[in-house]
Amino acid sequence: MNPVMVDVWRGNAVESEHRGSLALLDADGSVVLSLGDIDRPVFPRSAVKALQALPLVESDAADRLQLTDDELAIACASHNGEPAHVRIAAGMLAKAGVDAGVLECGAHWPYHEPTTREMAARGEAPTALNNNCSGKHAGFVCLACALMGWNDAGLNLQRYVKGYVKPEHPVMQEVGDALQSSTGFDLKKAPRGIDGCSIPTYGIPLRHLALAFARFGTGIGLREGQARAARRLREAVARSPFMVGGSDRFDSVVMQRLGERVFCKVGAEGMYCAALPERGLGVAIKISDGNNARAAEVVMAAVIEALVRLDDGEAGLLRGYSDVTLKNWNGIEVGALRAAPALRSALSAQAPAG
Amino acid sequence: MNPVMVDVWRGNAVESEHRGSLALLDADGSVVLSLGDIDRPVFPRSAVKALQALPLVESDAADRLQLTDDELAIACASHNGEPAHVRIAAGMLAKAGVDAGVLECGAHWPYHEPTTREMAARGEAPTALNNNCSGKHAGFVCLACALMGWNDAGLNLQRYVKGYVKPEHPVMQEVGDALQSSTGFDLKKAPRGIDGCSIPTYGIPLRHLALAFARFGTGIGLREGQARAARRLREAVARSPFMVGGSDRFDSVVMQRLGERVFCKVGAEGMYCAALPERGLGVAIKISDGNNARAAEVVMAAVIEALVRLDDGEAGLLRGYSDVTLKNWNGIEVGALRAAPALRSALSAQAPAG
Repeated sequence: MNPVMVDVWRGNAVESEHRGSLALLDADGSVVLSLGDIDRPVFPRSAVKALQALPLVESDAADRLQLTDDELAIACASHNGEPAHVRIAAGMLAKAGVDAGVLECGAHWPYHEPTTREMAARGEAPTALNNNCSGKHAGFVCLACALMGWNDAGLNLQRYVKGYVKPEHPVMQEVGDALQSSTGFDLKKAPRGIDGCSIPTYGIPLRHLALAFARFGTGIGLREGQARAARRLREAVARSPFMVGGSDRFDSVVMQRLGERVFCKVGAEGMYCAALPERGLGVAIKISDGNNARAAEVVMAAVIEALVRLDDGEAGLLRGYSDVTLKNWNGIEVGALRAAPALRSALSAQAPAG
Repeated sequence: MNPVMVDVWRGNAVESEHRGSLALLDADGSVVLSLGDIDRPVFPRSAVKALQALPLVESDAADRLQLTDDELAIACASHNGEPAHVRIAAGMLAKAGVDAGVLECGAHWPYHEPTTREMAARGEAPTALNNNCSGKHAGFVCLACALMGWNDAGLNLQRYVKGYVKPEHPVMQEVGDALQSSTGFDLKKAPRGIDGCSIPTYGIPLRHLALAFARFGTGIGLREGQARAARRLREAVARSPFMVGGSDRFDSVVMQRLGERVFCKVGAEGMYCAALPERGLGVAIKISDGNNARAAEVVMAAVIEALVRLDDGEAGLLRGYSDVTLKNWNGIEVGALRAAPALRSALSAQAPAG
């Protein structure tokens, strides 16, 4: 039974609660902290987009297409579908010589509600570029250029990328290899599902996900090309954090403030992964009931707050996410989301030295 | 520890799970089925709007203002804020001689996304009439007419209703009394919070909530005026189920099909209450993590499916809510929401005789 990670207060009582599990490992595979079950495979969903982007940079695709920080960051993103995200994803496809017609992620209204309402006001419908995964998919298309050996982009590429979301396509084979080598978990043994954007997702234990992010943050345990790619992706996201999420999104706000000291990335169904390079640690979180906004995010905020050396302003920013005042439609304070006392206590034992 | 009520499948594995508790009682207070903790007080939120509407009908307000089925139904609603809901709630206020300016529920964009996008396309902003609680609040305002003795509506009423969401206001006193007498739970001992629409919410055990809905569905154990009011509210909702929710909403769809055989009502934070009048039973459900759409609703569907005598078409409709195929943005089947096997098994022991 996984422990309570977040209490949802209303008035003078706990109204709801979120259970979950958490793994904190170093790059050698030592478990620094474990709460709940960290050995049951869980689908990491979008929390591993940065690992899935490793082949884009390890191959010569990022170099030959001269991908910018914005473009590398959006390859790791679950973005809001705001105008800037759409523009950057479209630009990546243009560099590869194709357009949004090749994207196989499907279309949905932007996560960012004001953008959705602005589009509706202009009579627009959403396209695949608004899909929160459009940057990751644009990265897959760019990777395809390298995998096909740069044989004339355009029509050849259009043919080559068709079906790139299927597990047997060369693009997904590369992406799966990166996931397997970074996590050290044999994907042949993994539970398997289809992700929201139609690519395969593999069940991987939190222990292995945290290990992968300890490696991603330090380079330790990765082959040389992967370690270089990880470093370049972390730098790109630190310089362009808006691209990884968007307005008011935790990942963007926190990395805007903390830069390369934290790499964090949300995934669907209550998943969160992070690298804390200064501490040499990787983090993986799964909320049992799948809640992101008010559970996984609260836990990740509490982890960063406890484990990363922060100044007062930074600590205040994180506390605003780990101890959240809830207001109703009239702006009246009605309750709070709070990292559970047992979680706080376990994390405080891992505070940075000195 | 509350048991797993709903499994969320992806591919060949359970990805997430929702725990919760359930009480099934008859109007004499006998527990027919109990899963998890049914004695801890929980905030029932909007699941008790029908109980909160009892004074509107037990007083002479509904009669003197000649409230229609649509109007009585929307007084029990958490509606979508669609144009028809706005029109009916505004009409109730007009009958009382006031306008939407008296509403103290706050404004929010309609729950129904196409309506929100249509409003945005017309350059409109949401008002308190779009608030999912506007009908309940319009009912409170109508009740105020009766409580002030019908002394000239208009300006007097505007003065009288001011602050009607506060626990000490005569309107909330009446509403609290109805809640206490129907549930048989002493609200002075209850945890207390402020609801989304700013009225007080009191923590009440599922045992007492299920009892109240057994009484609501049968009249047994209610004073005569309350029993008549309960019957009239049930009839109104059965005739105007759209008003209680709206397009594609479980409560509206199910009551449209089953009429007076089921009265069910969702509440925030994973709450559900129902009356099954043919069985003489009341139901109360709380999902521990607060999830409505994919947990409380699945459990309520499984309850109705198992306990109410249904024809094949009706059973198929309910099965579509208790065993839900999940598709991604491309319409590919990726998983399922399923009432947990232990829940199904416990419910099947309560199937209707013969």
